[in-house]
Amino acid sequence: MGKNCLVAQSGGPTAVINASVSGILDANMKYNYFEVVYGAKNGIQGVMEGKLIDLSHLTKDEIDLLKLTPASALGSCRHKMKDFNEDESEYKMILDTLEKYDIDTFFYIGGNDSMDTVHKLSLYVKNKGIDKKIVGIPKTIDNDLMETDFTPGFGSAAKYIATTVLETYLDASVYKDNGVYIVETMGRDAGWLASSSILAKLDGNPVVDFIYLPENPFDKEKFLTDVRKCYEEKKQVYIVASEGLKDANGDYVFKSNAIEVHDKFAHAQLGGVGNYLKSIIEQANITHRIKVLELGTAQRAAMHCASLTDIEVSHQCGLRAYEMVLDGKSGFMAGIKVKSKTPFETEIVEIDPSLVANKVKEIPREWITDNFVKEELIEYLTPLIQGQPQIKYENGLPKYIKLNIR
Amino acid sequence: MGKNCLVAQSGGPTAVINASVSGILDANMKYNYFEVVYGAKNGIQGVMEGKLIDLSHLTKDEIDLLKLTPASALGSCRHKMKDFNEDESEYKMILDTLEKYDIDTFFYIGGNDSMDTVHKLSLYVKNKGIDKKIVGIPKTIDNDLMETDFTPGFGSAAKYIATTVLETYLDASVYKDNGVYIVETMGRDAGWLASSSILAKLDGNPVVDFIYLPENPFDKEKFLTDVRKCYEEKKQVYIVASEGLKDANGDYVFKSNAIEVHDKFAHAQLGGVGNYLKSIIEQANITHRIKVLELGTAQRAAMHCASLTDIEVSHQCGLRAYEMVLDGKSGFMAGIKVKSKTPFETEIVEIDPSLVANKVKEIPREWITDNFVKEELIEYLTPLIQGQPQIKYENGLPKYIKLNIR
Repeated sequence: MGKNCLVAQSGGPTAVINASVSGILDANMKYNYFEVVYGAKNGIQGVMEGKLIDLSHLTKDEIDLLKLTPASALGSCRHKMKDFNEDESEYKMILDTLEKYDIDTFFYIGGNDSMDTVHKLSLYVKNKGIDKKIVGIPKTIDNDLMETDFTPGFGSAAKYIATTVLETYLDASVYKDNGVYIVETMGRDAGWLASSSILAKLDGNPVVDFIYLPENPFDKEKFLTDVRKCYEEKKQVYIVASEGLKDANGDYVFKSNAIEVHDKFAHAQLGGVGNYLKSIIEQANITHRIKVLELGTAQRAAMHCASLTDIEVSHQCGLRAYEMVLDGKSGFMAGIKVKSKTPFETEIVEIDPSLVANKVKEIPREWITDNFVKEELIEYLTPLIQGQPQIKYENGLPKYIKLNIR
Repeated sequence: MGKNCLVAQSGGPTAVINASVSGILDANMKYNYFEVVYGAKNGIQGVMEGKLIDLSHLTKDEIDLLKLTPASALGSCRHKMKDFNEDESEYKMILDTLEKYDIDTFFYIGGNDSMDTVHKLSLYVKNKGIDKKIVGIPKTIDNDLMETDFTPGFGSAAKYIATTVLETYLDASVYKDNGVYIVETMGRDAGWLASSSILAKLDGNPVVDFIYLPENPFDKEKFLTDVRKCYEEKKQVYIVASEGLKDANGDYVFKSNAIEVHDKFAHAQLGGVGNYLKSIIEQANITHRIKVLELGTAQRAAMHCASLTDIEVSHQCGLRAYEMVLDGKSGFMAGIKVKSKTPFETEIVEIDPSLVANKVKEIPREWITDNFVKEELIEYLTPLIQGQPQIKYENGLPKYIKLNIR
């Protein structure tokens, strides 16, 4: 006793990113290994600036509410750490905070950019012989992290996408001539999110006609041929496309001119693929009845439609990461392995964060076709969206907790 | 016994439009007054073409599933009836079908356009001395029908909007500088849908900063002043705007060039208000961190997030309309009256459809300000989003029924 720990969140929010925080807090209620569990405001930036809050005062009811509250309750950041051989100053600021608050272990919840931070920070303390534990906890709706069988946040986004596709398909099926409906999902570098639309079924049949993924070079002529044929047959076409569609040269099919100013990793800000597809269908004179639905940030924040499996695995990542620290481990990311498919069982395992940092896991090519997905992918996706959480409602709306840290 | 009835659906779908059909079917299970309950395919068009299906074979389980299935299960249409003094041909086609299938009563579920059909058809059979009953049942997510205290479909759309606003607000609050978030709701002529975003609260406070409604002429300079001040204070602005925003001349602020070809009522197809607001904020150099979320058809189809109050009232409209026919009534619309506010109780009453046809009910001006809404409106809205339905899930997604009529 006497030592403390710190948790921070980074990158784009997910519906279940707080479930990992609640896992750490539940673990500390159980084991009481750390005297204080601190939360840093706005990720690693808050650590550098020493902006911490004490999370230990949260009651069990509040922790349970946090578990079912979407979007990074501690705030987030996008910050690229320089190599410490190049510039040590930020590392020193971080260590100053850890020293000042007697912090033994730093849990950092994030995606492949944050695992870069975990990796660099782990190396730094090791090289300097500093006795601090640095632990990564994965999150991303994109499901594109290496080494983990899936990522916390993905299952809930997938469930929201499939639910919305099912409902908007019904809405888009009521006229004699229904035209073309296009859904644009997130997914900059991998098509996992777009592919989850395959799970929307009526009478056992997928409702989506075509799924376009960044893993396949986008072929405009083939696209128009497919859409025209389907429209002529059914007077209805339902298309799902990933924002990250690329052409044969590897360039994004549609780039917005907007600048994502707080994204120091210099990702191109995407968007508008749906409207791009609409415009080429119009130009080809297939039909002028075309609707586009861009799911936007709703797809990563929809706790009201989250996957219970996803919530519980995200919670486990926090809880097991804590337990691994108790076992003396450090410098790892808590990854997920599927132990058994039927019944679906997972375990949390130690992953080297350098294998995750700055890398992207695409969908295996043998699981997809040029405009659809195969049975293997459906089998992979299905267990991840199972189960509905018991959300608390207040006055007709979900009750969420706000940590007063701003 | 021996006589039959017919039900059809018209206009844009809602999450609960099938609940009114299920109300009619439940009533017929209870009273057994009609031998066959027919459904017409694609609204009044299907009646003219004699495209009917027998709904009487549906089991109680199937009726219950239909009650919780979004979007017009019988299909829909947008068809403007000519005055019968001008052209009687369509009236004759309709009467031919009613005769052929021995149909005594025709229930037509729709909005103000459909109540025009109900009104004209009622007049026609009355003038001709034909013994057929014509009954209107209201539906529209827009809540803009006269004479009824609210409309079936609105409460569920309002709940979906408020839920999505709450969740995307949390998502849009994680950075130090969060920029501007703009949600565009449906609502061509009235701002009821946009105004329902006021219900999204954290710690008892609304999360939305500004709400812009068609009831107020849009003042660009005042808008930019408001947004700039809020952004400078909080580095975060959350705006909700109705697609139907109009300028001081009554012209839509932003008109898409797209043509809604199946809309014979010649409504302008709207959209793009969100992107319009984004563009003027960018031009005014307030910030370049601006996200737009257009809720699109998801807001009218989201049974997974529907209001139980809305579902039950929609069901009551069907059931009570049937009972009123048993009492010998005809030529009416089944409207909703709030009998008691606390506890919230409603009753279904007879409304003259000519008072509803082609009219629009706006929000009372004394319930709103130029950029927000007042307590009276919050009190009006709150009861309409209460309660969550027990949706059946199958393989992680809502289970919906498809009537095989296409």
